[in-house]
Amino acid sequence: MAEIAELAVVEATLADASALATSFLQTLVRLLRAQDSYGAWEKKSDAEILKDYVITREQRRSLPIIGDPDPDVLWRVEQYYAAIGLCIEKETGLVASPMMSMHHEGFGRVILTAGRLVALSKQLRDVHRFGFDTLSALTAEGEKQVAAAAAMIRKYSEVANA
Amino acid sequence: MAEIAELAVVEATLADASALATSFLQTLVRLLRAQDSYGAWEKKSDAEILKDYVITREQRRSLPIIGDPDPDVLWRVEQYYAAIGLCIEKETGLVASPMMSMHHEGFGRVILTAGRLVALSKQLRDVHRFGFDTLSALTAEGEKQVAAAAAMIRKYSEVANA
Repeated sequence: MAEIAELAVVEATLADASALATSFLQTLVRLLRAQDSYGAWEKKSDAEILKDYVITREQRRSLPIIGDPDPDVLWRVEQYYAAIGLCIEKETGLVASPMMSMHHEGFGRVILTAGRLVALSKQLRDVHRFGFDTLSALTAEGEKQVAAAAAMIRKYSEVANA
Repeated sequence: MAEIAELAVVEATLADASALATSFLQTLVRLLRAQDSYGAWEKKSDAEILKDYVITREQRRSLPIIGDPDPDVLWRVEQYYAAIGLCIEKETGLVASPMMSMHHEGFGRVILTAGRLVALSKQLRDVHRFGFDTLSALTAEGEKQVAAAAAMIRKYSEVANA
């Protein structure tokens, strides 16, 4: 049993390492580091900088079901969608600018627009519990959004260029 | 001279009266009255309810050039764009939902989306001085935005219905 558990840890670490190498997480890390004006994070690894994006099932269970999101979590949500916007730009050549509108109780909406096109639109809820099971889940979800938005832009390129 | 001044006042009043009858200002008044939960405005005329939307040149000159908008003016801006959204719906049959994102110093952006289309997009600045010379100017500007957004929706109807 101990061996199986160890193996699972090794596998998870390998998955995290390959997640950290993806273009999406590299973009997100770059965005976060760009705001480290005082160099407080200089010695931190990428995994450490991203650690608040990961909320395990146990951690999630311990969070209240209803709660007001604090500024830190709102900032993480913003950076997450900003990273999606930058990756969309890398893939399509068009700037996708995010706009977020949140109620203080933690629900709201975020959209990414390219020209006159809403490339991505997402209803947010329970933002105080925003997080992913693993770094792999984080990058998989981010890449999925980027792919969907890029497909939208290719489909309606006239509007996206308007 | 006194006669000319009087004539100007009469003309202005007539212009205001016809502005108040427009569909745009009727919609805006309805929106504002809908939020009067305690009936405090029941005895107020439409012109009184709209009076804070009018800022004469003299009043504007007396306002600081730079300033943080207070919640009241932000609320007026929101209701103004909500009225534009409702009028767009009346004209095109499609819901146009507003989203506003403001910096506390009074600049930001407001958009109205219909389906996947950004029907209206406007950069806002100096929001603490938001207002119009007259009620006619207010309704003229509102109607202009409605017409532009409706034209956009007709042009890209596939995206607006997506």
